[in-house]
Amino acid sequence: MPYVTVKMLEGRTEEQKKALVEKVTAAVSETSNAPVENVVVFIEEMPKNHYAVAGKRFSDQ
Amino acid sequence: MPYVTVKMLEGRTEEQKKALVEKVTAAVSETSNAPVENVVVFIEEMPKNHYAVAGKRFSDQ
Amino acid sequence: MPYVTVKMLEGRTEEQKKALVEKVTAAVSETSNAPVENVVVFIEEMPKNHYAVAGKRFSDQ
Amino acid sequence: MPYVTVKMLEGRTEEQKKALVEKVTAAVSETSNAPVENVVVFIEEMPKNHYAVAGKRFSDQ
Amino acid sequence: MPYVTVKMLEGRTEEQKKALVEKVTAAVSETSNAPVENVVVFIEEMPKNHYAVAGKRFSDQ
Amino acid sequence: MPYVTVKMLEGRTEEQKKALVEKVTAAVSETSNAPVENVVVFIEEMPKNHYAVAGKRFSDQ
Repeated sequence: MPYVTVKMLEGRTEEQKKALVEKVTAAVSETSNAPVENVVVFIEEMPKNHYAVAGKRFSDQ
Repeated sequence: MPYVTVKMLEGRTEEQKKALVEKVTAAVSETSNAPVENVVVFIEEMPKNHYAVAGKRFSDQ
Repeated sequence: MPYVTVKMLEGRTEEQKKALVEKVTAAVSETSNAPVENVVVFIEEMPKNHYAVAGKRFSDQ
Repeated sequence: MPYVTVKMLEGRTEEQKKALVEKVTAAVSETSNAPVENVVVFIEEMPKNHYAVAGKRFSDQ
Repeated sequence: MPYVTVKMLEGRTEEQKKALVEKVTAAVSETSNAPVENVVVFIEEMPKNHYAVAGKRFSDQ
Repeated sequence: MPYVTVKMLEGRTEEQKKALVEKVTAAVSETSNAPVENVVVFIEEMPKNHYAVAGKRFSDQ
C-alpha cells in the first residue's frame, strides 16, 4: 500500500491534478509491484509565500 | 512527547474534532506511558480533489 | 479513511506499540465516524539525538 | 519544483526503487508541467511493526 | 539540500515569515555545510481548531 | 510552539547536528516571537538511495 504525497505550488488545473494522480498511481504500481487499488495519492499545495529556496520566498521574487 | 497527526477528508464538525482530539490523546497517553500534558495532536484536512485511491480522486467519483 | 501518524522517542516495547495502534484506531473510528477498516496508523520513532526542545537535544541532556 | 514522498513497506530491491524514482519523476513532470530537473523524490520505508490497518499491525498478522 | 518545514499557528505577518525564512536558511546552511542555494523552506500554518496539547484544542481554551 | 523538521542526507556529525538545532531554534524563536522553550526541532536523515533529484538517486550518481 504505497502512500504518495505530491507537494507543489498551487495553480495547477483540475485536469492536471487528475492526470497527475492517474499517471503517478500507474508508475508506483508498476514499479513497486503493488496493485493499483492499494496506491493512495495525496496532493498538497503551497502558496508562494510559504515556499522558499535560498532564503527567498517565491512571493518575494 | 508523542506527536500525533490525523489526516482525513474535510467535513467533520467541531464537536467531532474536539472529541477526536480528546480520545486520541487519552489513547496515546495510556499506551505509551507519556503524560497527557505531553501529547500533541495535529489535524490535517484534505479536500476531495486532493485525495485519490486507485488513481481516482474522491472528487471524480 | 483517516491516516494517523504517531511520532515518538524510540524505546516502546512491541506490546506498547500494539496496544497504541489498537486504542488509537478505536478512538479515531469512534469519533470520526469512519469504519475501523479504513483507519491507517503509522508509527515513527525518533532517536534522542534527532529531537530537541528549547534548542537542546534529548541526547545532550 | 514538486516534492514527492513515497511511503511503503520495506523490502523493495534497489532495482525497484531506481525504476520507481524514474517513472514517478517522469509522471509528475509530464502532468504538472515542471521540468524533470525540478522534481524531487523521497522514499520512506516502514517496517511491518510500524504500520497498521484496521488496528492490526502487519507484524501481527 | 536540506529541506526545512516550519509548522506553526497561523497569524504571523508577511514580514515575520520573510525574516523567519531568511534566518532559518542561514542557520541551516552555516551548520550543515550546505550552500544557501540548496536550502528549501516550507511554512505550514495551523488553525487553532486543528492543534491540541494535552487533549485541548487552542480554539477551545 | 513552532515545530521544525530538518530533512537532509545522512552524514552530519553530532557536533553539526547539535549546532544546527541550537541555531535553528534561535532563528525561529527570534522571528516568530515564540519563546525558545516552545520551539521543537526534529532531524530526519535520508540515505542516498532514498533521495532523488531529476529522477536520479544520489546512490546512482
